Amino acid sequence: MWQLYQFPLCPFSRKVRLLLGEKGVGYTLVRENPWERRDEFIDMNPAGQTPVIADPERDVRLIDSLVICEYFDETVDKAQMINGTAAQRAEIRRLSTWFDTFFYRDVTEKLLGERMIKRVVTKQGPDAKVLREAMKSAVEYLDYTDYLLGRHNWMAGSTLSLADLAAAAQISVADYLGGIDWKSHEETARWYSGMKSRPSFRPLLSERMEGIPAASHYDDVNF
Amino acid sequence: MWQLYQFPLCPFSRKVRLLLGEKGVGYTLVRENPWERRDEFIDMNPAGQTPVIADPERDVRLIDSLVICEYFDETVDKAQMINGTAAQRAEIRRLSTWFDTFFYRDVTEKLLGERMIKRVVTKQGPDAKVLREAMKSAVEYLDYTDYLLGRHNWMAGSTLSLADLAAAAQISVADYLGGIDWKSHEETARWYSGMKSRPSFRPLLSERMEGIPAASHYDDVNF
Repeated sequence: MWQLYQFPLCPFSRKVRLLLGEKGVGYTLVRENPWERRDEFIDMNPAGQTPVIADPERDVRLIDSLVICEYFDETVDKAQMINGTAAQRAEIRRLSTWFDTFFYRDVTEKLLGERMIKRVVTKQGPDAKVLREAMKSAVEYLDYTDYLLGRHNWMAGSTLSLADLAAAAQISVADYLGGIDWKSHEETARWYSGMKSRPSFRPLLSERMEGIPAASHYDDVNF
Repeated sequence: MWQLYQFPLCPFSRKVRLLLGEKGVGYTLVRENPWERRDEFIDMNPAGQTPVIADPERDVRLIDSLVICEYFDETVDKAQMINGTAAQRAEIRRLSTWFDTFFYRDVTEKLLGERMIKRVVTKQGPDAKVLREAMKSAVEYLDYTDYLLGRHNWMAGSTLSLADLAAAAQISVADYLGGIDWKSHEETARWYSGMKSRPSFRPLLSERMEGIPAASHYDDVNF
């Protein structure tokens, strides 16, 4: 059985969980707080980041969320998430990387820093200025996803792909932390409501990170 | 004909150039200084980063160096750079991403900031403390590549792969900027000498970034 090292608000672990859910791959969760830099975890992944997924019986260990997603998309035929022509696959990878890199840097990482790390690790209150910047950035990103979703039903084209999973993973963590203002983002809200309804997404909606309350609309499909 | 938007010391563009060279794909260079944030370039790639590769005749535009490498590895059979079993492909992708993310963050980006951006953009001298930190980090990274290369001939296994191209791209920029101390890194020096001898690498060794001198041993295969 695969073991996924993660914590509830890790957006990269969420992307992997969504993909494994769509593909019907079973796994167990192993709680890992990467900020604690546990020796055994650093031995597994010197980069010290979640997610890591391992199958001790088969002596396979995979590190980095994109690497993990590529691996399962190559080895499990069901629900191909990097699909279509080479150009379409490039667009799926571009958007996935864009959410993982830029949405994370400008929105999710800041919200996690202020509303989770400061509470859990340094016992400080959040910096209102940083929170405002993150929420302002989120509006700009959702303007762009509105544009994408105005052109076709899913982020990267006419079918569900890794780009949707990457987007939903980042947006769901930002939404949990109260960082998303859904007003005036109808296209993205419609898409996100659809994502929330998927069986692959339901386990994420019912989980909570201890000591970090979720926004009141977080688990409401009709938010 | 493909057009690659890049500047001489962009490590991510170098990785793409090495891959295109290995595969024998022709392209022309278009000089792009991403720090100038040229409007036409931002229109092409809202993330504002090099490399971008475009073929106007075929109306294809690819953004992000990993996306570009995956595209050409999928569409050009010659010299497969993400090869082997699914687990081997995962290891190639893990190491490539590791160089792109962590070596870049701790070594290349700092050296570029101090020795290129400050000279070209802000007309300041480098911060000696930041340079020392970057060079100290480089030693630690080369300790790890020595370990990898002590186990097999190439970074990710017994054949040349994208992991070698990603490593050579980052290390070559750091070496150009005088950030690599080759003493006590015999395995990596032997591997790098081999990389420098490859036809795909030669064009990079003869190029210079205007106003930024290369380290004296930079283009010497027997450094």
